[in-house]
Amino acid sequence: MTHTPVAIVGAGPAGLTLSHLLHQYGVESVVFESRSRAEVEETVRAGVLEQGVINMMRETGVGERMDRDADIDDAIDISINGARTRIDLKALTGHQMAVWPQHEYLKDFIARRLADGGTILFETSVDDAEGWDGDKVVINYTNADGTHETMTADYIIAADGSKSPYRAPILELDGAVRARHEYEYAWFGILVNGPQTQKELIYATHEEGFALISTRTKDVQRYYLQCDPNDTVEQWSDERIWEQLHTRVDGNGLAVQEGEIFDKSVLKFRSAVTDPMQRGRLFLAGDSAHTVPPTGAKGLNLAVADVAVLAPGLARALTKGNDDLLTKYSELAVPRIWRAQHFSYWMSSMLHSVPSQGYFQHRRRLAELEAMLSSEAGRRYQAEQYVGLDLPKFEI
Amino acid sequence: MTHTPVAIVGAGPAGLTLSHLLHQYGVESVVFESRSRAEVEETVRAGVLEQGVINMMRETGVGERMDRDADIDDAIDISINGARTRIDLKALTGHQMAVWPQHEYLKDFIARRLADGGTILFETSVDDAEGWDGDKVVINYTNADGTHETMTADYIIAADGSKSPYRAPILELDGAVRARHEYEYAWFGILVNGPQTQKELIYATHEEGFALISTRTKDVQRYYLQCDPNDTVEQWSDERIWEQLHTRVDGNGLAVQEGEIFDKSVLKFRSAVTDPMQRGRLFLAGDSAHTVPPTGAKGLNLAVADVAVLAPGLARALTKGNDDLLTKYSELAVPRIWRAQHFSYWMSSMLHSVPSQGYFQHRRRLAELEAMLSSEAGRRYQAEQYVGLDLPKFEI
Repeated sequence: MTHTPVAIVGAGPAGLTLSHLLHQYGVESVVFESRSRAEVEETVRAGVLEQGVINMMRETGVGERMDRDADIDDAIDISINGARTRIDLKALTGHQMAVWPQHEYLKDFIARRLADGGTILFETSVDDAEGWDGDKVVINYTNADGTHETMTADYIIAADGSKSPYRAPILELDGAVRARHEYEYAWFGILVNGPQTQKELIYATHEEGFALISTRTKDVQRYYLQCDPNDTVEQWSDERIWEQLHTRVDGNGLAVQEGEIFDKSVLKFRSAVTDPMQRGRLFLAGDSAHTVPPTGAKGLNLAVADVAVLAPGLARALTKGNDDLLTKYSELAVPRIWRAQHFSYWMSSMLHSVPSQGYFQHRRRLAELEAMLSSEAGRRYQAEQYVGLDLPKFEI
Repeated sequence: MTHTPVAIVGAGPAGLTLSHLLHQYGVESVVFESRSRAEVEETVRAGVLEQGVINMMRETGVGERMDRDADIDDAIDISINGARTRIDLKALTGHQMAVWPQHEYLKDFIARRLADGGTILFETSVDDAEGWDGDKVVINYTNADGTHETMTADYIIAADGSKSPYRAPILELDGAVRARHEYEYAWFGILVNGPQTQKELIYATHEEGFALISTRTKDVQRYYLQCDPNDTVEQWSDERIWEQLHTRVDGNGLAVQEGEIFDKSVLKFRSAVTDPMQRGRLFLAGDSAHTVPPTGAKGLNLAVADVAVLAPGLARALTKGNDDLLTKYSELAVPRIWRAQHFSYWMSSMLHSVPSQGYFQHRRRLAELEAMLSSEAGRRYQAEQYVGLDLPKFEI
């Protein structure tokens, strides 16, 4: 029976970043991923990287392709009924952000882990795991060829997304909470073969709803429209999509660039926080612990922030026999998660039109946007939260 | 039958300030007030004056007593479970604020109007008014001695508070709106003979609810506790009041100073905006048009901001025969009202504890406070809105 110091379930941003950071500390790990490498690398997902994540990628040798190919943006636009205000993130905060889709991020980390001799078991399902309250964790899993094996680990990290089964044992702990918030709206997302409308993101609000203009490459665009959570792809013809994008975004000399729509999907909006994020030798990281709505673009960044605490915590425990940082993982990670939840909720509430909330809230919301956008302090307060806090740093 | 260019119903902040500002432009007016002068001057009301209002008082010769006797504060404190953060309004915005109770403000303006030969008809009730859609307004009123008289006016200004009957004819106009918001909480207010807890205001949030520490004089204090809107004075014994004030506010070496409670009352929380604020020769100013919750301390300041548009508008119409500014009164006044509504709503939402909103909103609210208080930009964004915009200035 093989043994690994750290078993990581899930080759998403949390799992792969953790495995990579642990390697920097000289700690090896095994990543279990039920999908194939191709599936992981080809599932197109949004991604906006905070400066702290950009820095970590550069400092640990994973930033080369991002630096070459990503859009590094200095600013975002906020548009109200077609009138755009630029929020100059770089001038306001000294930070930039990178538009680097999540699957590209994953490609970088997979390539680097493999080059560093790391173990990622693709098409390998963890069937069950146990023992986190004791001396070691026992993991039963099924290989790509259908054979069953068992591995032991000092620690198991559930980085397996929002449907993780490893949240349940943590929620059995006395005082553990799962806080949730549901939103009255969702996003209808499209992928388009066509020219960029604008290099920098446009967050647009309009009486008919929110829209987001973003870009994947010079030739592939990603647009979103606020929709009802129960909407289906069938309800959104290409014609309706373009009509709504033009209505919500066009103005001041800018028009949404049309193209061939090759993907349509509905993104649900929800917020969730799990606290604590650990039990014995079991730890949650990323979406297994918390979910944010996409408005603040915090999902990937929060996953990286989690493992920026967890990696040195695990390394200190495994290499120095000192688990003080690991014990405080939740305490250190959770406040940042609430900050990101607040920001995502605030951005969502400020930009989405919810007629059922009535006229008072509609006008108040527009007054809030005006107060924020017309004030240098307001724009900087928004920009600081948009670009995010620096990643925590710990000596091991 | 007598005639006045401007008939003003109500000797509150809006009515008296308007009458005083019109006099600066050489326009005379008559103020109708159903209460006695003593009642108006002795009804103790809160008052926090923005820098713009302070400046207007100084520039128009009404500021002497305020400059001598008011607390001119550079800062407020925001307290979270007893840990206080100072928001240095002066350093952040260059503006100060004056804690000058509304009845003291009214005393200043009554004295000045009378010294300037102005007409304030105390104990005089307007029975009905009509004609605002035509060439002149006809006002029937009852004098203090019970006799009935009639006066005509070029314009009538309803500055008679939130129960004004003059809102109704405006709301009959096509497209007119009355936007409202109700809150799940109220304030229990007390007046105390006793020493100051602190010169500068403390806005305190705590799981058990909000509390506000404010001061009237060195010997009279004004404290508020978040309560249920249906609470009665009988439910709040002195003992319960002090226990809750200590619980919600004490900390970091500060303790609420006790004294003799000589007044208890429940303040309702509501927001309302009327748009437009005019019809023909009829104009609303102050609380007759809009109501704000007390958290942002904007009530008196908004009334003054209204008449800072209305006074030059009326003066230009009456002395130059040009009603372009008067016609735009609502358009010019309403955006500032929505800004104040947003700020009051935001401050209220951020500082009050509403258990029925659930754990997510509770933690998100604390994260918002932390984000704001830990950032210079956040504190400045809050301070800018707290001290308010400058008053609008118009040449006539």
